[in-house]
Amino acid sequence: MPAGTLLYAQSGGVTAVINATASAVLQAARTKKVRVLAARNGILGALREELIDTTTLSTAQVKALAHTPGGAFGSCRLKLKSVEADRAKYERLLAVLQAHDVRWFLYNGGNDSADTALKVSQLAAEFGYPLTCVGVPKTIDNDLAVTDCCPGFGSAAKYTAVSVRECALDVAAMAETSTKVFVYEAMGRHAGWLAAAAGLAGEGRDEAPHLILFPERPFDEADFLARVDAVVKRLGHCVVVASEGIRAADGTFVADAGGGKDAFGHAQLGGVASHLAGRVKDVLGHKVHWSLPDYLQRSARHLASKTDVEQAMAVGRAAVDCALAGQNAVMPVIVRTADEPYQWHVDVAPLSKVANHEKTMPKGFIRADGHGITAAARRYLAPLIAGEAYPPYVRNGLPDYVVLPQATVRRKLPAWAG
Amino acid sequence: MPAGTLLYAQSGGVTAVINATASAVLQAARTKKVRVLAARNGILGALREELIDTTTLSTAQVKALAHTPGGAFGSCRLKLKSVEADRAKYERLLAVLQAHDVRWFLYNGGNDSADTALKVSQLAAEFGYPLTCVGVPKTIDNDLAVTDCCPGFGSAAKYTAVSVRECALDVAAMAETSTKVFVYEAMGRHAGWLAAAAGLAGEGRDEAPHLILFPERPFDEADFLARVDAVVKRLGHCVVVASEGIRAADGTFVADAGGGKDAFGHAQLGGVASHLAGRVKDVLGHKVHWSLPDYLQRSARHLASKTDVEQAMAVGRAAVDCALAGQNAVMPVIVRTADEPYQWHVDVAPLSKVANHEKTMPKGFIRADGHGITAAARRYLAPLIAGEAYPPYVRNGLPDYVVLPQATVRRKLPAWAG
Repeated sequence: MPAGTLLYAQSGGVTAVINATASAVLQAARTKKVRVLAARNGILGALREELIDTTTLSTAQVKALAHTPGGAFGSCRLKLKSVEADRAKYERLLAVLQAHDVRWFLYNGGNDSADTALKVSQLAAEFGYPLTCVGVPKTIDNDLAVTDCCPGFGSAAKYTAVSVRECALDVAAMAETSTKVFVYEAMGRHAGWLAAAAGLAGEGRDEAPHLILFPERPFDEADFLARVDAVVKRLGHCVVVASEGIRAADGTFVADAGGGKDAFGHAQLGGVASHLAGRVKDVLGHKVHWSLPDYLQRSARHLASKTDVEQAMAVGRAAVDCALAGQNAVMPVIVRTADEPYQWHVDVAPLSKVANHEKTMPKGFIRADGHGITAAARRYLAPLIAGEAYPPYVRNGLPDYVVLPQATVRRKLPAWAG
Repeated sequence: MPAGTLLYAQSGGVTAVINATASAVLQAARTKKVRVLAARNGILGALREELIDTTTLSTAQVKALAHTPGGAFGSCRLKLKSVEADRAKYERLLAVLQAHDVRWFLYNGGNDSADTALKVSQLAAEFGYPLTCVGVPKTIDNDLAVTDCCPGFGSAAKYTAVSVRECALDVAAMAETSTKVFVYEAMGRHAGWLAAAAGLAGEGRDEAPHLILFPERPFDEADFLARVDAVVKRLGHCVVVASEGIRAADGTFVADAGGGKDAFGHAQLGGVASHLAGRVKDVLGHKVHWSLPDYLQRSARHLASKTDVEQAMAVGRAAVDCALAGQNAVMPVIVRTADEPYQWHVDVAPLSKVANHEKTMPKGFIRADGHGITAAARRYLAPLIAGEAYPPYVRNGLPDYVVLPQATVRRKLPAWAG
């Protein structure tokens, strides 16, 4: 049994498959006889010294994690700033790690988390503390650099494509006397990855979604309304997919429901669909409905992509391998070698190449008219939503999701004053 | 081969399984060598003499109907008034039926449709035209009289319970530093059946949903906010399920997004969740998110209840049997004989007992505090969401839903002037 402890923490918005990564981490560590602590509520738990002892979990619980959405140990939105600005936090973090003999730190999150993991590794080196830091990719936003795709995205993409196809069939059936325009709001602050995934729901200009609004293209209301009206005139109905982050030409968000900012300093958005629906109703006079799935789209484990689940588990296993091999300041990434039949494997990238970069959608993925996806986008997206990975259901018709005990190990340090 | 034609029409809001009923009708009719025409866009197609010849559909298409959401032949919101007020429409309808030798009329809808089918049967008798009218139950609202439950409800209920459980896991994981209150808006104008189904997502006062708002109970904002705050203080987060039709003590709807009325004269609702979320944010100051699944909840065939699919097909088969046996002005209904293990069969009820009645939720289904469901409600609801009935998926990760050709048979009458 290797000396030392592995600390695993989840960060940022959770996904349908981040727990699949956690499950893989725990399973791989158990095989190697490595003790794993899990920070409660992400990096916050590490700072507060709230560490969950995963060795008390049963094999069945660890296995059930792989089909449970949400974040089993809790996650958080807490971005550490530069080492200079947040030195006390970094030093507290190292103190906690040292107190619990943590030699391997796995941080499961997006690009902010990659940055944090990188800084922790640098500070540990500065202090001469032997620590291996490994980032583990996760985000439904699919905006991490280097990796071909991000665990979490494929399942949200599958949910989006299937949901849009389903509600489009509903709208088409009723359009003659009822709703003619339907607006579906997809998550995506800066990049329209999920909106693009909706494009998989149909092919050709007559199949829904008829219009996709990408944050990559400036929103022009008059043009939008004219396009909606033309589709309604041609087909009798129109299904629109709008990315939450669409902005007018002057850069202002089309709808900013909250008007606030989250802990990461990002604008907190929402309400694009209801805004667009209102404009369609007021200007065009068509009966309109809209849907805001919100968290449903990132927690729909019941409709996870098999590809996504497999990749989420693969990066978890690879992260443990990296850690135990002493590969410091790296992140396992997905490398695609073929579109069809889809082939991929896990490689390892330096965190410095991932941290604080944002992968945008290639320009060649958006159709020339700006409102649909190209064949290249389909080739990229289709394998990511392929396959089903249903959770087991219990007798009462609900998935057998597991809720883990959150008891933490005994503290060794004074309470955190931060 | 019996002389005459069977006309099948879909009515009102479509569901995840109304096409399963259609599939069963077509399969049963084919077994009996009965020709089936399907009205395009419901009763409107019958009036316009837009009749789809289903004999051209392949066996594979008919089978695929059983796992396709939406309304394959189109539906409509067009309520015929009294025979006196809408005599011209009824007479046109009979003329179309006669022109196409329709001897059996199956109308697949809710209580308004049961009323229409009943009136058509009465008028046919008045005119001495031999016609057997059979209502076929369908509605996610679960508000039809006589039948124990309504095909379409079980699948929407399963979607609701699973979605609420999933997003609750997401919220719980993030609540420490992010969203503390989540509001899920469920369909249900007058009866809180779907909101009640959300109650299946958890048990006990600590499992989500923590608060359900039923249209059966007057909404009291101060009480609501106090309850939300208390749950947040106790658990760190609070998941609320709100029925779209909740009203204040004075009878006004809490949120009326459109402010209009649909063709049935019902107020067109929406926006309860966003309204409640706004109040939580403004008054309590908690970070809040909300979800408005809208049509997603009634078209989610990917998460259909097996019980629901089986019942939808059973009433379709029974409707054909009733029609061919000359049982006029009736509707096949679901009779429950045991809760656990769940047992049910199909019986036949007179349309007069169904038409224009609305089944409300038993008082004993809502917990004494007004914000949760009772054990009796669980006993009733649990079997309705039991079992999974997944659609087949094609290689590209999407369900293999079928879109049928909409070609209509040659007209025999002048165009309808109505």
